[in-house]
Amino acid sequence: MSLVLIRKTAPTAQWVEALRHACPDLEVRVWPDTGPAEDVEFVLSWAADPGVIAGFPNLRAVFSLGAGVDHILKDPTVPAHLPVARMVDPSLTTGMVQYVCMAVLQRHRGWDDMRSFQREHAWRRPEARVSRVGIMGLGELGTACALALQGLGFEVDGWSRRAKTLPGVHAHAGEEGLEAFLARTDILVNLLPLTAELENILCAETFARLPRGAYLINVGRGEHLVEADLLAALDAGQLSGATLDVFRVEPLPAEHPFWARADIAITPHNASMTHPGTAAAHVAANIARARAGQALLGQVDRQRGY
Amino acid sequence: MSLVLIRKTAPTAQWVEALRHACPDLEVRVWPDTGPAEDVEFVLSWAADPGVIAGFPNLRAVFSLGAGVDHILKDPTVPAHLPVARMVDPSLTTGMVQYVCMAVLQRHRGWDDMRSFQREHAWRRPEARVSRVGIMGLGELGTACALALQGLGFEVDGWSRRAKTLPGVHAHAGEEGLEAFLARTDILVNLLPLTAELENILCAETFARLPRGAYLINVGRGEHLVEADLLAALDAGQLSGATLDVFRVEPLPAEHPFWARADIAITPHNASMTHPGTAAAHVAANIARARAGQALLGQVDRQRGY
Repeated sequence: MSLVLIRKTAPTAQWVEALRHACPDLEVRVWPDTGPAEDVEFVLSWAADPGVIAGFPNLRAVFSLGAGVDHILKDPTVPAHLPVARMVDPSLTTGMVQYVCMAVLQRHRGWDDMRSFQREHAWRRPEARVSRVGIMGLGELGTACALALQGLGFEVDGWSRRAKTLPGVHAHAGEEGLEAFLARTDILVNLLPLTAELENILCAETFARLPRGAYLINVGRGEHLVEADLLAALDAGQLSGATLDVFRVEPLPAEHPFWARADIAITPHNASMTHPGTAAAHVAANIARARAGQALLGQVDRQRGY
Repeated sequence: MSLVLIRKTAPTAQWVEALRHACPDLEVRVWPDTGPAEDVEFVLSWAADPGVIAGFPNLRAVFSLGAGVDHILKDPTVPAHLPVARMVDPSLTTGMVQYVCMAVLQRHRGWDDMRSFQREHAWRRPEARVSRVGIMGLGELGTACALALQGLGFEVDGWSRRAKTLPGVHAHAGEEGLEAFLARTDILVNLLPLTAELENILCAETFARLPRGAYLINVGRGEHLVEADLLAALDAGQLSGATLDVFRVEPLPAEHPFWARADIAITPHNASMTHPGTAAAHVAANIARARAGQALLGQVDRQRGY
């Protein structure tokens, strides 16, 4: 029996080594060189082409290489009974907390302003800001970011689909909690999962409910954001800037208008990367669970979509 | 009896209001409009000119407006018996922790590289780095930074003149501990106090002991750094860059070579600012202590120099 790794254009050697080390009894194959389809017991995938997963008739489970599973769930050919698990990797959480803290601090402390002043050889302090941070999405990553930002002295609000409580965080929930959440948010951090309901949530209406001059950090998915609405909100001054790590089309095409804007910082979907060394242990644990008929770690509720 | 605030070119109105609120029984005056010199009981100062403090014959104590007291101790006319206290202000610690975390994260995550890639419209990930952070100076600010950086997933070493222990931090001490500390440090954060012994500690010899390509963050004092040695180490590739908040001459003169370098980020001595609202409470507490003949909060050992 085998595990098939699907990573398309990205390198796989480190993954194969880490998986062989963590699961010595497992044959690890790299798509498309899978061997007999009926021998494949598990798939570990990032953005497999539609239909590929369904081509393995004896699968026990599908594992995502990242925290999101939207790339698996949007493939309608993936059998409905098949357990799907997101990646749970301490490196993934650490990376996201680092990125979000960096982006929030840069905005709060006026880093871009200071770079402009340096270009003018001007000894000038940026305006001091009060920055209330609002985090959309209070899953594992959102919760870790909220706590880290509190530790850095920020007042943090959170918003999630279903009510959650988190010590020290002003938690808002559901459609009815969204307006109050946005009205308090100077720096908006999106860490929502991508579901049909949450697509396009970062739109003109949402931006209009933020205080004027608010700042956007998108580390969720490109599909959460209506790109034209962001550009309009920036041009109108309703938003003052954005740090974006995810895009509707990745790699972001060279002619995309985001690249040339001084008020948008672009990073190449590297806010948080799964590390083969630590992640392989999670895969090994889930393989044992799947074989024993137990629920997976990070198993997705496929109705809910995350 | 009165307190004289000495802040020279910076605004004083917020300070006067906060002090009057925190110490209603005290007359607050702003230098040079001090009234009779013999009525002055306390001085709250940032960089008073030499001789100014000694001109008040009935002082009970001198308070620094910042965490450093070097600007007071370097004035030989300040009477040796006079208690001197550094500022202890939670806002000061929060600000420094934010700044140091921001600068460390920017280096660790390759922020400058990503800005270059954006200018080229290039979807490209910077090299992943392992960054061990070394903090020189384990006082109140250095300790807070060390703990915050650990929380962000960094391995942290510390160096101080006298041995200290800090949970989870590899602590080194004294001249004999410096080499081992530097050899382990990819990102060097200077938070030392300025004393005669520590002036020029950031010099060619120190840089040579760091791993090649190390990064410097100076939030101590400009006098810790030998500026020509920094430029030489950058040009030779021994250091890869620096974030500097403090300088030998402030404001940094417009013609200074640091301004034009892409490998030096300059900020205008605003890593950490004392906030009148929170700091006035500290001053009020120390006024009560001084009048009661008690030791001050943050009182300086004048032999040691900090």
